[in-house]
Amino acid sequence: MEREHLSRQYDAELREIREKLLEMGGKVEVMINDALKALVERDSVLADRVIAFDHEINRLEMLIDEKCLAVLALRQPAARDLRFITLALKIVTDLERIGDQCRNIGKRGKELNEEPVLKPYIDLPRMAHWAGVMVKEALDAFVQGDAELALKVCRDDDFVDNLNEQIQRELLTFMIEDASAISRSLKINFISKCLERIAAHATNVAEMVIFMVKGKDIRHTVV
Amino acid sequence: MEREHLSRQYDAELREIREKLLEMGGKVEVMINDALKALVERDSVLADRVIAFDHEINRLEMLIDEKCLAVLALRQPAARDLRFITLALKIVTDLERIGDQCRNIGKRGKELNEEPVLKPYIDLPRMAHWAGVMVKEALDAFVQGDAELALKVCRDDDFVDNLNEQIQRELLTFMIEDASAISRSLKINFISKCLERIAAHATNVAEMVIFMVKGKDIRHTVV
Repeated sequence: MEREHLSRQYDAELREIREKLLEMGGKVEVMINDALKALVERDSVLADRVIAFDHEINRLEMLIDEKCLAVLALRQPAARDLRFITLALKIVTDLERIGDQCRNIGKRGKELNEEPVLKPYIDLPRMAHWAGVMVKEALDAFVQGDAELALKVCRDDDFVDNLNEQIQRELLTFMIEDASAISRSLKINFISKCLERIAAHATNVAEMVIFMVKGKDIRHTVV
Repeated sequence: MEREHLSRQYDAELREIREKLLEMGGKVEVMINDALKALVERDSVLADRVIAFDHEINRLEMLIDEKCLAVLALRQPAARDLRFITLALKIVTDLERIGDQCRNIGKRGKELNEEPVLKPYIDLPRMAHWAGVMVKEALDAFVQGDAELALKVCRDDDFVDNLNEQIQRELLTFMIEDASAISRSLKINFISKCLERIAAHATNVAEMVIFMVKGKDIRHTVV
């Protein structure tokens, strides 16, 4: 009876870590979309909200870290559960840094909102959309132990990388043609790189998931 | 007797994780310095060596991860040891990504070596030097549980950030004055940001060390 009680409690603790991670992922996704919306719609109030929201992401990181440590200390998880917990510890770090990138986009977006529009934003929102999808799918892959979905995330990363390179080439042309466009181009360039980094974090998560599921480390081999 | 044997073996395992981490950190430090040397001395052969060496860093990451998982699974460490192992798991990820940044510097350096020199490199080697010191001190702080040293690393990060901003301002002037300097300026800009990211990784490690030592999370408060 006592043992059954403990086991139910243990399951509940694992479930809570899983749920908190999904909650954190969902909030990070909203941040990505809001950071871009603030840029495209020149809404600096929304940008400020994104910047302030980073605190909530940091709070969740610390909370999940603590919960993982508690389970490791008190429950001595083995095999699959152990792998799940240690990966959760690594994944929250990636999620937290995605939050940092969103904050960076918000800050730079506010600066851009003060200046005339250089050109309509077309590729950046597409990048943001894909980066958000990658974050969501990487986390889904993690909680469902779905290696196929994780592989898809790794493949999608090339698409975001290509968009980033395309944006950078385009901005280079702008800068060469018109010196007055350089400062704004550099800021857009920075935002593009933030989105590329967000996709890279999602890819890191996905690679770790494949490792968890297949017990095979593809992090450093070609996907 | 049996218990004593097990305990000696456990100590040896912890020591090995510590030593492997320091080995990985030492190798990453050499990479940072070599990546910059390849740029300053226009030595593309050395740049290629830096790029190839990333494999060794990736190998060490996987090795340390496995050792940490094995200790968690078989030894059920508690308290201080548990915190040490879970941090080691997070820290190798930072070290591995520093290796990625060095590889990026190597690649971009090779491209710059093909073009005429834009200007002598003065601040970039200084940034690289400081970033390397920060990585070393963050790891020393970790293995010695030295919160003071970790705090120093966090403070040094401002210095590297300032150098990065100074470089970016300077490059902006170059670009505005001379369109033919834009492409090279962007590459130097990229390298400067890589170094800034390396310092940021060292700072992340240092913040986690302070948390480990003081049991207080300063990751998301002002240092």
